[in-house]
Amino acid sequence: MVNVAIVGANGYSGAELCAILARHPAAEVVAVTSRQHAGKRLGEVLPRLEGCGPLAALAFSEPSRDALLACDAEFFFLALPHGLAAEFAAPLCDAGRRVVDLSADFRLRDAEVYREFYGEPHGAGHLLGRAVYGLPELHREAIRGASLVASAGCYPTSVLLPLVPLLRGGIIAPGDIAVSSASGVSGAGRKAETAYLYGECNESLRAYGLPKHRHLSEIEQELSLAAECPVVITFVPHLAPMTRGIHTTIFARLAEGAAEADILPALEAAYAGERFVRVGRALPDTKNVSGTNFCDISARFDGRAKRAILLSVEDNLVKGAAGQAVQNFNLMAGLDETAGLIL
Amino acid sequence: MVNVAIVGANGYSGAELCAILARHPAAEVVAVTSRQHAGKRLGEVLPRLEGCGPLAALAFSEPSRDALLACDAEFFFLALPHGLAAEFAAPLCDAGRRVVDLSADFRLRDAEVYREFYGEPHGAGHLLGRAVYGLPELHREAIRGASLVASAGCYPTSVLLPLVPLLRGGIIAPGDIAVSSASGVSGAGRKAETAYLYGECNESLRAYGLPKHRHLSEIEQELSLAAECPVVITFVPHLAPMTRGIHTTIFARLAEGAAEADILPALEAAYAGERFVRVGRALPDTKNVSGTNFCDISARFDGRAKRAILLSVEDNLVKGAAGQAVQNFNLMAGLDETAGLIL
Amino acid sequence: MVNVAIVGANGYSGAELCAILARHPAAEVVAVTSRQHAGKRLGEVLPRLEGCGPLAALAFSEPSRDALLACDAEFFFLALPHGLAAEFAAPLCDAGRRVVDLSADFRLRDAEVYREFYGEPHGAGHLLGRAVYGLPELHREAIRGASLVASAGCYPTSVLLPLVPLLRGGIIAPGDIAVSSASGVSGAGRKAETAYLYGECNESLRAYGLPKHRHLSEIEQELSLAAECPVVITFVPHLAPMTRGIHTTIFARLAEGAAEADILPALEAAYAGERFVRVGRALPDTKNVSGTNFCDISARFDGRAKRAILLSVEDNLVKGAAGQAVQNFNLMAGLDETAGLIL
Amino acid sequence: MVNVAIVGANGYSGAELCAILARHPAAEVVAVTSRQHAGKRLGEVLPRLEGCGPLAALAFSEPSRDALLACDAEFFFLALPHGLAAEFAAPLCDAGRRVVDLSADFRLRDAEVYREFYGEPHGAGHLLGRAVYGLPELHREAIRGASLVASAGCYPTSVLLPLVPLLRGGIIAPGDIAVSSASGVSGAGRKAETAYLYGECNESLRAYGLPKHRHLSEIEQELSLAAECPVVITFVPHLAPMTRGIHTTIFARLAEGAAEADILPALEAAYAGERFVRVGRALPDTKNVSGTNFCDISARFDGRAKRAILLSVEDNLVKGAAGQAVQNFNLMAGLDETAGLIL
Repeated sequence: MVNVAIVGANGYSGAELCAILARHPAAEVVAVTSRQHAGKRLGEVLPRLEGCGPLAALAFSEPSRDALLACDAEFFFLALPHGLAAEFAAPLCDAGRRVVDLSADFRLRDAEVYREFYGEPHGAGHLLGRAVYGLPELHREAIRGASLVASAGCYPTSVLLPLVPLLRGGIIAPGDIAVSSASGVSGAGRKAETAYLYGECNESLRAYGLPKHRHLSEIEQELSLAAECPVVITFVPHLAPMTRGIHTTIFARLAEGAAEADILPALEAAYAGERFVRVGRALPDTKNVSGTNFCDISARFDGRAKRAILLSVEDNLVKGAAGQAVQNFNLMAGLDETAGLIL
Repeated sequence: MVNVAIVGANGYSGAELCAILARHPAAEVVAVTSRQHAGKRLGEVLPRLEGCGPLAALAFSEPSRDALLACDAEFFFLALPHGLAAEFAAPLCDAGRRVVDLSADFRLRDAEVYREFYGEPHGAGHLLGRAVYGLPELHREAIRGASLVASAGCYPTSVLLPLVPLLRGGIIAPGDIAVSSASGVSGAGRKAETAYLYGECNESLRAYGLPKHRHLSEIEQELSLAAECPVVITFVPHLAPMTRGIHTTIFARLAEGAAEADILPALEAAYAGERFVRVGRALPDTKNVSGTNFCDISARFDGRAKRAILLSVEDNLVKGAAGQAVQNFNLMAGLDETAGLIL
Repeated sequence: MVNVAIVGANGYSGAELCAILARHPAAEVVAVTSRQHAGKRLGEVLPRLEGCGPLAALAFSEPSRDALLACDAEFFFLALPHGLAAEFAAPLCDAGRRVVDLSADFRLRDAEVYREFYGEPHGAGHLLGRAVYGLPELHREAIRGASLVASAGCYPTSVLLPLVPLLRGGIIAPGDIAVSSASGVSGAGRKAETAYLYGECNESLRAYGLPKHRHLSEIEQELSLAAECPVVITFVPHLAPMTRGIHTTIFARLAEGAAEADILPALEAAYAGERFVRVGRALPDTKNVSGTNFCDISARFDGRAKRAILLSVEDNLVKGAAGQAVQNFNLMAGLDETAGLIL
Repeated sequence: MVNVAIVGANGYSGAELCAILARHPAAEVVAVTSRQHAGKRLGEVLPRLEGCGPLAALAFSEPSRDALLACDAEFFFLALPHGLAAEFAAPLCDAGRRVVDLSADFRLRDAEVYREFYGEPHGAGHLLGRAVYGLPELHREAIRGASLVASAGCYPTSVLLPLVPLLRGGIIAPGDIAVSSASGVSGAGRKAETAYLYGECNESLRAYGLPKHRHLSEIEQELSLAAECPVVITFVPHLAPMTRGIHTTIFARLAEGAAEADILPALEAAYAGERFVRVGRALPDTKNVSGTNFCDISARFDGRAKRAILLSVEDNLVKGAAGQAVQNFNLMAGLDETAGLIL
């Protein structure tokens, strides 16, 4: 068993992480922290997990750096707001612990881009070079050996998985991409804000964060790597009246020399060996991936307007957050990549 | 009072029409038909309307042409599946009655386009020349005098209202438009199909009807008229887990010579005198138009990718169906355009 | 036109009040207050109401007593948290203004009961004798002449309307009543609390407030008046995953000498002349009253267990709050009781 | 590995059964049947399960008795409508196969009660004596050796688990019990009926099946066994706007000599060794059991009205159907009772 700690276990991603790790065959959670709930039993705060193993009996501790350094965990999952994660990652990494960070703090290679999109200087810029972008389907080998993995974001995962193989393969033109995504409300976190009350979100569909959502920065970073040229896209996120799930619709143009018939086979080939990416002809539906670590992908071609339409779905809290973090952890710890993740 | 009949009052659009006409100050419903419910009181089938006036006491009759021709209505609202509407519209129009059709049967000027998109020959092609496309904000004067108005579809209304003024004004380039829309489940009608069960649609978001949804035909017809050149677009509809509402997100490019700063003012100018189109800076939200005849529109510009983003919302059953039909009727009957529609 | 003011127009009840008064034919809103939004246009805070008349152009003012006393309103609707309403009602009543209070502050005749259920002394006990319990179907005549009407609460309305006629008529035994109610989430108000986030309430059904919910106090007060003896009941409220609506299921026993067949006729007779109570054989459904001022009632008898089952539904924000307040206002102002309320 | 077959794998319970058995460590599904989908791959019909193991590659076969008898399964799960299950159970049992039936066909000991509640004669009355009521917490030992287990229904499970220990222990009086339950819409099955469309069920809460819901028959049978006297109760089921979950609220009286303080301890003692029943002080919430095989129970006492209030929640498709069936199967097959069920 590998000992792990979860820092910030009370938000939606943290709670999902607890649920996954509670059934993980090779990980043992030895510490969970929550400022708000320090001292309480985890099962009291997350009653869903009561009776699901020893995890429920663990008490939340204060998220102090000293306590974390003193605890008997090899791996630390950070499920904290951006900005705060950097404060914890630095001392842990310096002490030789390995970190899977679910926040956006270490996803960008360039601290300047961070400052541009997040509106503040990066708090641990010296670690950026060490961090690996935690999307296993793209960076599996680098993740295995990394000490700090920045688990990919929810929207980025749903955009990158369909696009990267097509950019790498020269099938899609990098210069004309527009993305419309919709996320369930859990994507906004477990924050006490009126905007996310049931009465505000039910029977409501709305765009937000236009035109420069923070996730755009990591999306473009990874698309540019795949295309081997700077890629700038338009990204429109929406809030949809559901708890979980992201649906992403991508409009793109074929690259010169590419044909409509290349698209789906290229995606199938890219993900033939992957356990968590399902490529198929059927149009994807968030309900088929809800509660799972799958990303389902399909594609259509609009022959009249000469546009490719790529579609993907995932559970924003699993493949878009906690499941992906555990998939990264499994790789880092030398475990079966699917451990704890086939639900 | 103007006497009207509702043919097909049991579907979602028909029921909404009953609700609006029940409070209409100048229309009196003298007949409602429903094959399924013939003989029953309207209030029994639509208990929501019980106690809301004399309409609830009306009995449904069989939708026979002879009975309709014999009834004392000047105006007939047809809320029937496409294909069937044509069968009723022809004898009514021939008999000098005026018709507001909520189906797609008379929205296209060209019977060949109908055949292409609907997969069958048009049943009353000779009436196409007489029919007026029933989107009052675009064709108000023609609607006033028409005997047959084909009330605009739900998706088309949400796409045309933001785009038409910008194409007419030469602000948006007609050659590079992609649309992502999402509709509430009532848009699929009150049909007993497993695909629209609560258990299938809740926590579900999915695209459908790709790449050639039937509504594309009327969208392109009207965009081409506005742009004065053939316009072909990509249109991706989605089903969202809510009862009512359409949210439309449009990606487009500026026309040559146009500036980012032209967009919102052009929309504001186009709709300055309109009662049912609200243009504003705030991103629109379906919940703000639910149960109303409003279409809310906004716009953003993505300066990095040089794309305009247009956003609109409406209630698919009101401005997208029954409300629009009543707005058309008000114009045809010489009434205040807003009668019965300020909820 | 009667001039009115809305104090606390930003919560769900306040917003609903604005929506109803915006279309009211005989009331003119001359002031709206909101601590949080003072200075902003109402249409900016409640974009749904933009374009629905002059109300949207009104600016929110601070809810200061002096400003309220200085404003040109005859009637004041108080849509404030309990405790706070008393602070405003007293000076307004003293100054001869008439008040419709949507809070619980003046619903109880006995300040001691208030203290027992609300956990604090009453802030304006001297007004309790002057206040009339604002359920028009029970206290219409007293409401007409009242200067201070305490509009009945949401749960109480749904419990009292089915039970009171049956207790008055000696059909139901007062000593064995148990009530299970479920409310939509808007009943919890527009408060920034994690418990009411979409992600917490969706796919969630839970009881709360057991065994002594605050509304029990006014329910029992009015049941006791109807039965002419002290009535103590069990009341279990639940939170259901919907925005609007209350469904109430009441278990009761027949009084001695009463028969199963008396129940529905007694209800029908009691509400024969009422515009907003619909008694029928069909089991009521919250969706049939959503957005309306109706309360639908039905009854069944379980002959095997010898229990009457009474069922009622209402929209908690309309008949359970804002609609009822306007109905009370209409009576107080000598207007048609249904003015603004037939939607 | 134990070979099993699933007869009727396309409904909601059948699909859930597939999902659970796909991850079951000791069961191998060798046949799945569906009249509607015969010939198709399971993964095509249930895309959620694609990539979750060999089950997805299985093809649906026609549910013919001969084919089932010829197939290599020791255990048969019948997920069929009531009435139909009896037709399959008889030949399978006669041939020495063991059957877990999810329908209501074998839950009643008395064919006359079946006829009374289901309105038709029982199709295989001779098997009733052999069938064991499949609620493991009540009948574990009998289930182990049974050849035919009638897995307990969804509402009954939620009513029996709180009540049976209290009746057995003489804490609750058997003569004065009333139950109000609410179920998610999946409880109505995957039937193409307009009543269960999204547009009908969203924002809707309604009672149904009054006063003699079919499940009442098995509830009273088991309560009578526990109380050792005939028990007749009132049961009011409701349909709530959610996909999964049942919430049950029970009103009852203390038995003579019992005290309020006995209730929770008696429940805790009864379920101390149970893995799937969680008794606690916190009021239960359907979202904490959704997707799990847990039933959460709590209790309150209304000292004013002298009534006990028992509350329970479960996932109607798991502990109320497929999970319970697998729990029964685990017992019958001599496996760990929790195999495949700790999610």
